[in-house]
Amino acid sequence: MAPIKLIIDTDPGVDDSMAILAAFNSPEVEVIGLTSMYGNVPTRMATRNAITLCHLAGRQDVPVVEGAHKSLRGAAKERIADFVHGTDGFGNTAPQLAAGDPAPGSAAEFIVRMASQHPGEVVVLALAALTNVALALHLDPCLAEKLARVVVLGGAFYCNGNVNPAAEANVFGDPEAANVVFSRLPNCWLVGLDVTHKCCMSAGAIEGMAGRGRHGTFLRDITQFYLGYHRQAYKMEAVYVHDAAAFAAVVDPGLFEWQQGGVLVVTEGPAKGRTIRDEGKKEWVGSNDWQGLPPVQVALGVDSQRLVAWVLERMTR
Amino acid sequence: MAPIKLIIDTDPGVDDSMAILAAFNSPEVEVIGLTSMYGNVPTRMATRNAITLCHLAGRQDVPVVEGAHKSLRGAAKERIADFVHGTDGFGNTAPQLAAGDPAPGSAAEFIVRMASQHPGEVVVLALAALTNVALALHLDPCLAEKLARVVVLGGAFYCNGNVNPAAEANVFGDPEAANVVFSRLPNCWLVGLDVTHKCCMSAGAIEGMAGRGRHGTFLRDITQFYLGYHRQAYKMEAVYVHDAAAFAAVVDPGLFEWQQGGVLVVTEGPAKGRTIRDEGKKEWVGSNDWQGLPPVQVALGVDSQRLVAWVLERMTR
Repeated sequence: MAPIKLIIDTDPGVDDSMAILAAFNSPEVEVIGLTSMYGNVPTRMATRNAITLCHLAGRQDVPVVEGAHKSLRGAAKERIADFVHGTDGFGNTAPQLAAGDPAPGSAAEFIVRMASQHPGEVVVLALAALTNVALALHLDPCLAEKLARVVVLGGAFYCNGNVNPAAEANVFGDPEAANVVFSRLPNCWLVGLDVTHKCCMSAGAIEGMAGRGRHGTFLRDITQFYLGYHRQAYKMEAVYVHDAAAFAAVVDPGLFEWQQGGVLVVTEGPAKGRTIRDEGKKEWVGSNDWQGLPPVQVALGVDSQRLVAWVLERMTR
Repeated sequence: MAPIKLIIDTDPGVDDSMAILAAFNSPEVEVIGLTSMYGNVPTRMATRNAITLCHLAGRQDVPVVEGAHKSLRGAAKERIADFVHGTDGFGNTAPQLAAGDPAPGSAAEFIVRMASQHPGEVVVLALAALTNVALALHLDPCLAEKLARVVVLGGAFYCNGNVNPAAEANVFGDPEAANVVFSRLPNCWLVGLDVTHKCCMSAGAIEGMAGRGRHGTFLRDITQFYLGYHRQAYKMEAVYVHDAAAFAAVVDPGLFEWQQGGVLVVTEGPAKGRTIRDEGKKEWVGSNDWQGLPPVQVALGVDSQRLVAWVLERMTR
């Protein structure tokens, strides 16, 4: 089978780095480009970090395209999770950043161009707020049918969020964009906190990456700050491998149990960013905002032990 | 032990009738009054139906006090679930309504007066939108400390609502009132769809009530329409005994597993009425609207077999 043509939309970010380096180590996918977003770091830094990760992997050939600097609605100041990933996105390890420029054009244009060149073949792995993907859907009204799949790290359905009890960070980052994506794509797969909060990599496993494979030491180093955050916020000696879990869903969806149904995002008020799905168990009386939404696949179960082992192996090849 | 002094705030309603007649059959509680609300039927009809239920039980001595006709925010037309309970609230069986007048004053005043007369002794079982309880909290700033407990039939946390995928009907009926109640009461217990959607009474069990006890035939008859609704909406030959389950929580909280945490209600947009709780698993970075909320006890597990048998036995004494 030909490898999956993969665009990773990303805000690296510690767990983004895990996912990206694991992807470069995975023959099942051909990374055809990285597109950058704000979230864990500001967009410009995400671009720079993405270029650096390509260089680390010896993949300077992979284009990095800069994405949106603001959510669809726009905010005076978007939320940046530097307290999770360090101000440099690499856990304050300040690695030497690679020289090299982003490819011309915008992330949204790049997604549209790639999907048009390879209709039915491109998968987008969206690891940040969904602004770039939403903008791409706005640029090309036929994009939804051209993409093979969009796998999103995002959402919290039957558990608390990580920004607050309601909201997961990526959906919170641009709830309007998330509604655009969830309401238009016929083939959207969500990997959210319902499953990623079951995917913990222990401090011991992180330490054990040192010296293993091309990136083990780098990943061990950048994960220390991220581990400190988990220790403080969750009282645990382990980290969640959110983005790497979403990458695993690209390669091996069978690691998860999926349920489908329309998904709507709260865009206002204290629950802004909450994702709510129609479970399809009831014939509703009267109209509601879920009616007519396309079915979104939502991961609600995961073989976490197998997933974490898989991710670890991919990162340390 | 002295029986619990119980006020039932109610919009009868088929399952309200189940709860009220079960309460009259239960020596653990002393029903000191019924207060009426809109929801399953308009408020005036709820008052009339409550008076009728008292008469059926031979308890004309129990005062019925009329409650609010509108939600706190007010709406041109409040939602009335006549398609669930019949236009008469008794499954369109049109039983002879009892003569008799409601007691003077408002439901909110009655709740305040009873709690002030019996501080620490009164339990309110709220089976409808929470307008009356919220108004009572507005009338008397010290009410929260005077009530022993408020047990609410309401909310949907880890499952779909019954109005739409987001919202359970009682909280949807007055989300602002629900926020008042959940944010001010130190001893509030929620029995919502997470558990009541596990408490099904089969068509056979409903039929089996006929001729049993004082109210078996009446309850069998009024439940037929309600069963028809469940058949159509949920494709099942059974009904949910929502209100009776909440009454069970008054008498025997041990039938449920409870989790505590602050609860916030979405008041705007398509998810209006969604209840979201802080699970207390994370130390949040920055402020959010759950901080400072009192812990609300939320039923998340239930011994449904035992509960349904208990309810059935209480209804057919």
